[in-house]
Amino acid sequence: MLHENYSVNAAGHLCLNGADTTVLAEKYGTPLYLLDEDYIRARCRLYKRAMEKYFGNGSSVLYASKANSFKKIYRIIDEEGLGTDVVSSGELYTALEAGFPAERIFFHGNAKTDEDIRFGVESGVGCFVADNYDELRRLDKCAGERGVKQKLILRVTPGIDTHTFEAVNTGKVDSKFGAAIETGQAMELTEKALAFKNLELLGFHCHVGSQVFDPKPFLDTAEIMIGYLAAVRDSLGFTAQLLDIGGGFGVRYVESDPQLDVDATIHSIAEYMKAKCSALGFPLPKVLMEPGRGIVAAAGVTVYTVESVKTITGFKSYAAIDGGMTDNPRYALYRSQYTVYPAGNMNANPDFVCDVVGRCCESGDIICPNARIPMPKSGDLLAVAVTGAYNFSMASNYNSIPRPPIVMVSGYGDHLAVRRESFADMTARQL
Amino acid sequence: MLHENYSVNAAGHLCLNGADTTVLAEKYGTPLYLLDEDYIRARCRLYKRAMEKYFGNGSSVLYASKANSFKKIYRIIDEEGLGTDVVSSGELYTALEAGFPAERIFFHGNAKTDEDIRFGVESGVGCFVADNYDELRRLDKCAGERGVKQKLILRVTPGIDTHTFEAVNTGKVDSKFGAAIETGQAMELTEKALAFKNLELLGFHCHVGSQVFDPKPFLDTAEIMIGYLAAVRDSLGFTAQLLDIGGGFGVRYVESDPQLDVDATIHSIAEYMKAKCSALGFPLPKVLMEPGRGIVAAAGVTVYTVESVKTITGFKSYAAIDGGMTDNPRYALYRSQYTVYPAGNMNANPDFVCDVVGRCCESGDIICPNARIPMPKSGDLLAVAVTGAYNFSMASNYNSIPRPPIVMVSGYGDHLAVRRESFADMTARQL
Repeated sequence: MLHENYSVNAAGHLCLNGADTTVLAEKYGTPLYLLDEDYIRARCRLYKRAMEKYFGNGSSVLYASKANSFKKIYRIIDEEGLGTDVVSSGELYTALEAGFPAERIFFHGNAKTDEDIRFGVESGVGCFVADNYDELRRLDKCAGERGVKQKLILRVTPGIDTHTFEAVNTGKVDSKFGAAIETGQAMELTEKALAFKNLELLGFHCHVGSQVFDPKPFLDTAEIMIGYLAAVRDSLGFTAQLLDIGGGFGVRYVESDPQLDVDATIHSIAEYMKAKCSALGFPLPKVLMEPGRGIVAAAGVTVYTVESVKTITGFKSYAAIDGGMTDNPRYALYRSQYTVYPAGNMNANPDFVCDVVGRCCESGDIICPNARIPMPKSGDLLAVAVTGAYNFSMASNYNSIPRPPIVMVSGYGDHLAVRRESFADMTARQL
Repeated sequence: MLHENYSVNAAGHLCLNGADTTVLAEKYGTPLYLLDEDYIRARCRLYKRAMEKYFGNGSSVLYASKANSFKKIYRIIDEEGLGTDVVSSGELYTALEAGFPAERIFFHGNAKTDEDIRFGVESGVGCFVADNYDELRRLDKCAGERGVKQKLILRVTPGIDTHTFEAVNTGKVDSKFGAAIETGQAMELTEKALAFKNLELLGFHCHVGSQVFDPKPFLDTAEIMIGYLAAVRDSLGFTAQLLDIGGGFGVRYVESDPQLDVDATIHSIAEYMKAKCSALGFPLPKVLMEPGRGIVAAAGVTVYTVESVKTITGFKSYAAIDGGMTDNPRYALYRSQYTVYPAGNMNANPDFVCDVVGRCCESGDIICPNARIPMPKSGDLLAVAVTGAYNFSMASNYNSIPRPPIVMVSGYGDHLAVRRESFADMTARQL
């Protein structure tokens, strides 16, 4: 199986955290998002322990909640002692409604509105991740009006020194996010940030990319960032105490993906960064990581019912399910690869090759081309693995299709965390 | 301007149907979907008149409501005397809630569930557009249990005879939709459909593609379909009375797109089809068209506020707005091109080239690369044109961003048709 929390029971059914997915599908209906709560907690601990152990110095983990944002998950993250980052007022609202402590929230976003800034400052979020001068100016004004000194870090893009590095996964110079180190604009923005009376700059944020399995881009980024911290100290006399290195660790979606060793990778980044700090005589800052996908992706399985199976003679076969790009738009958006399991028929021979397609009136509504499964019939269940990240959070009502519920599965049993959307929910805003 | 319902007033502001978009943005906030109700009505009449005039014979128009589905639009479509097609129970529910007559509803979908079939039959929808044998079998059973003879048409794919036609825009043989004529599977399915006791086959449905400006693929499809109708008559003794040729007429999004002449194109298709029928001695069926985009796309303008502007020295410039792929995912999904207007500054020199990007924490959140506008500053309004189709209907809550309201603009003034989503709305299903 792709991950250790997936298994097959004696009946030949797919299990998530030991729970039979076909029983859950019967109980809650399909399409159905399942999330393994114990796996989420284990991943929180894995990341947190590694950050504390190898970096020390108060270093820790922020859950990047855009991967999957709903009340229950913020409670889990809080209980596990992580911070969280939010990218909008909506995520901030959800976290606060769930009782997440504001001081452990980092507020991201490249285009914050005045209302976002007001909401963040008034809520007492621990740290803004400021993107640009427009934001700094407005954040300073807002904080000043409320007599607050707002803590922040600045988002910078480490860029790619093509003479040194081959990696293409590091945060590009040409990006809508932050200010580029390479062009000198990051230094300019840092100088400006330090001049604002109502802002307290703690350090910097950068982000390498997504689905990165190789440690090298992280090491390259660490090198650039430590170099930048030292340059800021030399130029502006400011010694950063906080460095947020973002997320980006790859997650295994298909058999051919590697299984990234989180502990070892964080260890290697820590050793590398300590050596760079030492070489430059720069004190190791508190380091934060922002795993999102790395915490929730493999916790998730989506269960669907097959509605029709057809073979176009001489071309290909299709299995059409009762969900699709509305609950998982990642193939449509990125051609992302997924693994499809025959949830109720795991021991049968997977000798039928078909495109697993959705129910939307759109050719691009594909979940998995060329899936290898036992030949399904109408009414059979199919499970798509590793759907815990960027499925619920990106879901739409395209074709007026209601969004599935989220059911949490743990050693204590299963329970609803997000109820199924009704037609009345979908049309509630329509006059 | 791209379309005749767009104009610039004396203040140099963009107007939709004569209404100042900056005044509407002030009144309703941004991001804001505006829809020109008069334009929608005019387009309904244009299509309906052409179908009635050139085909006669009861031929008419179904609004393809997946393009933009909400209660008010079904009322408009109903008042204009069109039918509508729905692709899900959710669209059917919305149409019925709006008071749309069930008998003028066509129910599409490649993966209808038992519940969809039950809802459609019990609601008395005028016609199912059946996709496959699994559906026929279940539809017959459901209709039989309710003592109903359910009317339907079959979805077939006209395919491409590569020896005759160059067009690549016709419904492909290899498709998740319907049954292919070329492989003989359409004929098989037709024979099976005719054998069901509780089903009444009226005819067939096909679909050419999307954003087609050239009449040729429609003519090619007409030729194939009339040939197929004649073959069905010869083989099975069944004379189809209804032919639904789907949608697909192109809409102008950018200056370089042509302006398709709807009246002339329908005229040419009708003439061609009549000639084919005459040549084959086949009686001209009642013909339906399904414009969706063609009716609503150019009725729509989305108004945004600029939150930040940045230039990466030596690379490019970015204008970040308070919306993005959450309210318009079409660039992210298809690299669709759009036209951006400086809503409050239409007479200024558009000498600033920038990527207009959204507020999502995602590099792919782009609305329009290389837009040419006067250099904007934080707080300025930008309007994206031709957003009436597949924007509201495809919108998501990614990054927990609430969906914008829809405001209708007509000669009688402006009014809210869909209210802005609140944070409480977004989290209402979360336990």
